[in-house]
Parts: sequence; structure tokens; C-alpha cells
Amino acid sequence: MYNSLSIIGPGLLGASIAMSVYEKKLAKEIHLWARSEHKRNLCLKTDWCDHVHETLEHVAKNSDFIIICTPVDTIIPILKTIAPHLTPGTIVTDVGSVKESICSLAKTIPNNNHFHFIGSHPMAGSEKSGMEHASSTLLKEATCIVTPTEQAETSALEKVTQFWDNLEMQPVLMEPQIHDSLIAKISHLPHIVASILAASLSDIPTEQFAYSGGGLKDTTRVAGGSPSLWQSIISQNADPILKSIDQFEHTLKAFKESLASQDLDNLHKILNEGQLTRKAIEKSN
Amino acid sequence: MYNSLSIIGPGLLGASIAMSVYEKKLAKEIHLWARSEHKRNLCLKTDWCDHVHETLEHVAKNSDFIIICTPVDTIIPILKTIAPHLTPGTIVTDVGSVKESICSLAKTIPNNNHFHFIGSHPMAGSEKSGMEHASSTLLKEATCIVTPTEQAETSALEKVTQFWDNLEMQPVLMEPQIHDSLIAKISHLPHIVASILAASLSDIPTEQFAYSGGGLKDTTRVAGGSPSLWQSIISQNADPILKSIDQFEHTLKAFKESLASQDLDNLHKILNEGQLTRKAIEKSN
Repeated sequence: MYNSLSIIGPGLLGASIAMSVYEKKLAKEIHLWARSEHKRNLCLKTDWCDHVHETLEHVAKNSDFIIICTPVDTIIPILKTIAPHLTPGTIVTDVGSVKESICSLAKTIPNNNHFHFIGSHPMAGSEKSGMEHASSTLLKEATCIVTPTEQAETSALEKVTQFWDNLEMQPVLMEPQIHDSLIAKISHLPHIVASILAASLSDIPTEQFAYSGGGLKDTTRVAGGSPSLWQSIISQNADPILKSIDQFEHTLKAFKESLASQDLDNLHKILNEGQLTRKAIEKSN
Repeated sequence: MYNSLSIIGPGLLGASIAMSVYEKKLAKEIHLWARSEHKRNLCLKTDWCDHVHETLEHVAKNSDFIIICTPVDTIIPILKTIAPHLTPGTIVTDVGSVKESICSLAKTIPNNNHFHFIGSHPMAGSEKSGMEHASSTLLKEATCIVTPTEQAETSALEKVTQFWDNLEMQPVLMEPQIHDSLIAKISHLPHIVASILAASLSDIPTEQFAYSGGGLKDTTRVAGGSPSLWQSIISQNADPILKSIDQFEHTLKAFKESLASQDLDNLHKILNEGQLTRKAIEKSN
């Protein structure tokens, strides 16, 4: 049990984590930092928040376990701000969906106070964002990828994996670079494809979407996600994503050429490959 | 009420229609034609089948309303086979998801027996195919696009739209060409994009899909559909689909270039356009 667990950024994930920590009684006190006063006031009215802080310095001084749950491009700036004020031994993790840049930059931050930063990526989310959609069940049974670098101390790593395990998540260890390449394919590419599909249909008169079936609805669902959040995620994982787009484009080109030349065997081959992989995706979940 | 309503091809849609016709008591007798003896025997064991036929000629002679529910590339060959045996005034419709080629070829079939062919496309389906997944609720409240040509007689058209309305579907009239262009965008393109996304991920070790969230699952769902059925649908609607792929590729190219040059404003613009269109899709259903 932690004496004082802090969540920086009570959005969809941050608030869901706080709810789960509260329900499972994993911390004596739950502290929260939110940029806006309005959000801090909302937090104070809930069961899952004992204290709110206006400054990051205060959070740093009052925590033994910190989870940074803000957008990916703010994680390193926040870590830099809190580093000088952390108590020795404090464990810091995050929920950013990009890990290589965060984990390698984290190593460059002066660490006079002997804190431990170990990156995490809970594979739980929704196209809805914000505290109002948070729920502890969002995390339940989902995978949480933990990405220690070589310098990570075993005891700190154990505490981080144990934390996600306590929230009924399934922790998996992965190198940051391998994480980014895999996530580019299984999370970022699907998001991009859904967004581009939706964007490329923007000239259709709205009322005609009423004629669509479940296919269009499912295939575009994640395009409902916040453009600002995703612009930040995608731009931080550019190289692995560009590689995965190349692979997608390569298959799209083959499909288009087969259709233009009515090469039915090749069309069938690509659709069949898609069906086989889809079955593997379906089975794995 | 029809004396004798026939369904040619009791697959997912055909069997769902038969079930609904039976539940709503829309016909005195429901006749079915299936290619395989095994399927015919299965049909005979159900409530929603009074007679099965081995030959299309028999179906033609014994029906006043016929719905052809076989794959799109077999609809015209079947219509040609039944045409010489139809009773004057018989109404024939289909459920093919491509309409221009079917409706214009249907006009060229000799019609000495004065039957009426009017194309239909019930916008109901699933990535599962086959009679075993059929259900009358599949059709309920879904749109059914009806595509009369200029020659269509008003009374026959009324009977077809009334039929779908009786199944609690929402009939909408559309020219065959307009139908094909719209469906290329809101049904065929999403299917192709989902299939290509899945196919382009075929090199990922199966067990790693366990780390994916709901995004990959939803975005690839329709790729589970039958490659043979979809190869046939897609190849019959090649031109409108190629146009919609061009539009998709254009947006993908802009996205890729913006990502490679870290043009965050443009990335945001495309993601935002995707989100807006996604919201319109969500609202319309």
C-alpha cells in the first residue's frame, strides 16, 4: 500500500486509475494535480480524491508513487518540473502511448533525488476523452505494457508491474523501441486509417450516412477520438508509423491494380489474407 | 399477402427474409431454392419453409413474388434462367449490393411473360454469412434501397417497396448508378480499407494481437467477411470503387507528407475532418 499516490492529469485514464486505486484501497491518500481550478474542484467532490494540488512542486513533495496521465508531449516537461522536488525512492510512471522518446529523454533528466522513472502504457481507452467518461472497469483485464530501460532497478520495476497488476490489468514487459513499432501497427495505424476513411468521406451529404450499415460505423469508430491528443501521439511516433503506412499503401496499391485489371484471383488473395489476420485479431482478444 | 413467395438462396439475408415473412404472415406459402441438397433438407426442417425446389424452373412456375438472394455475380444468370418460366405479372427483386450492372442487364432479358424486375439492396448484413446466422431482427429498421429504372411500372414498384416496409425495413428509392456510387463510398470502401489494414498486419506474430485495444478490433471487423462474396461485389462495382480509393489515397498521401515533415497543423486538420465526419456518421445511425 502506498502512503500517498499522486495522479497528474485526471482525464479519462487518470481518473479511471484513481477510481480503481480507491476501490481497491491501494493507497492511504490519493492526490491529484489538474491544470484547471474547475477540474480540481470537481475532483474534490469525488470519493477517489483526498487532496488536490495547484502546483507540480507540491505533488512531487507529497508522493511516493506518481502516475503522469497527461498528453504524451507534456510528460517529459512535467517530469523535468517535478524531478528536483521528489523524495528519494519515489516511483514515477506514465500512461503515454509512445515510449522510446519519453524513456530515453527521461534518462537525461538530472536525478539527484534518486527517483525511479519507468514508462507504462495501459492499453485501455475509448474514443471519448475526459474525466466524465472514466470508470475503473476501463482498465480491467486490459494489457499494460511496461517499458523499462537497462538502467531500471529491479525493485522499482517490480513495484510498477505490481501496481498495474493490482488494478487487474495484465502487465507485459517490452523494450521502448519494440513497443513503439508494435503500437504503430496495432493502434496508431488503425486510428489513422479510420480517420482518413472518415475524412475522405467528408463530401457526402450528412443525411446519406443514414443508409450505411454497421461496417462504416465500426470502421470509423476510433476517428471520433480527440484530434489534439492524436496529433500529439502520432507526431511523437513518426518513424514507426511512416513504416506501417508504407506497408498499408503497398497492399492498397496491389489491391487497386488488381481491381482495375479485374484480376479476381489477386483480389481474392488480398481479401483472404485480410480475413485470416482478422480471425487472428478476433481470437486474441 | 402473397400466395407463393419464393426465396432463391437461403443464406444470411435470404433466410432472414424468409423468417420475417413467416413471422409476419406475409405469404400463404414460402418456397425456397438452394443449390445443395443438404441446405434444402435443413430448410424443410424449419417453420419458415413450406416447399423446397431442386430446379429454378420449378421456382419460377410456382411463385408470384421472388427474391433472388444469391451472390451478385449469379443474379443475372439466375434471372435469365427463370425468365422463360415466370407467370405473367410475377414480381422479381434481389438483394445484390451492386445495382447498375444488374438493373441494366435485367432490361436486356427477353420478357415475353411480362414479369417485373426491380432491384433492391437491403442494407443489413454481418461479417458472418450463412443461414445459421440468419435472424428476422437483422432487417428490422435497416434501410432498404430500391432502384427502379425508368421502365419500372408504378404498381410493381409499389409492391416491392411495400414488401420491404412490411418487413419493418425503411425503403428508399434511388437510381442504380447513384446507389452504386454511394455504396462504393459508405460500404465497399470501408470493407476494402478494413481488409487491407488487416492484410498489411499479417506479419505480426498472432500472440501480439493480444496487446491491441478495441481500436484494431473495430476497425478490422468487416474484414472477417467472406473473401469470395466480397471479391464478387467489389469486382462488379469497380469504377465507383476506384474513384473512392483515389479519394482515400489522396488524403492518406497528404497525411503521410504532413507527418514526415512534422506539419502538426495539417495533421490536426485531417484528424479534425475525420472526427467531424465520424460524428455525422454516428448521429445518422
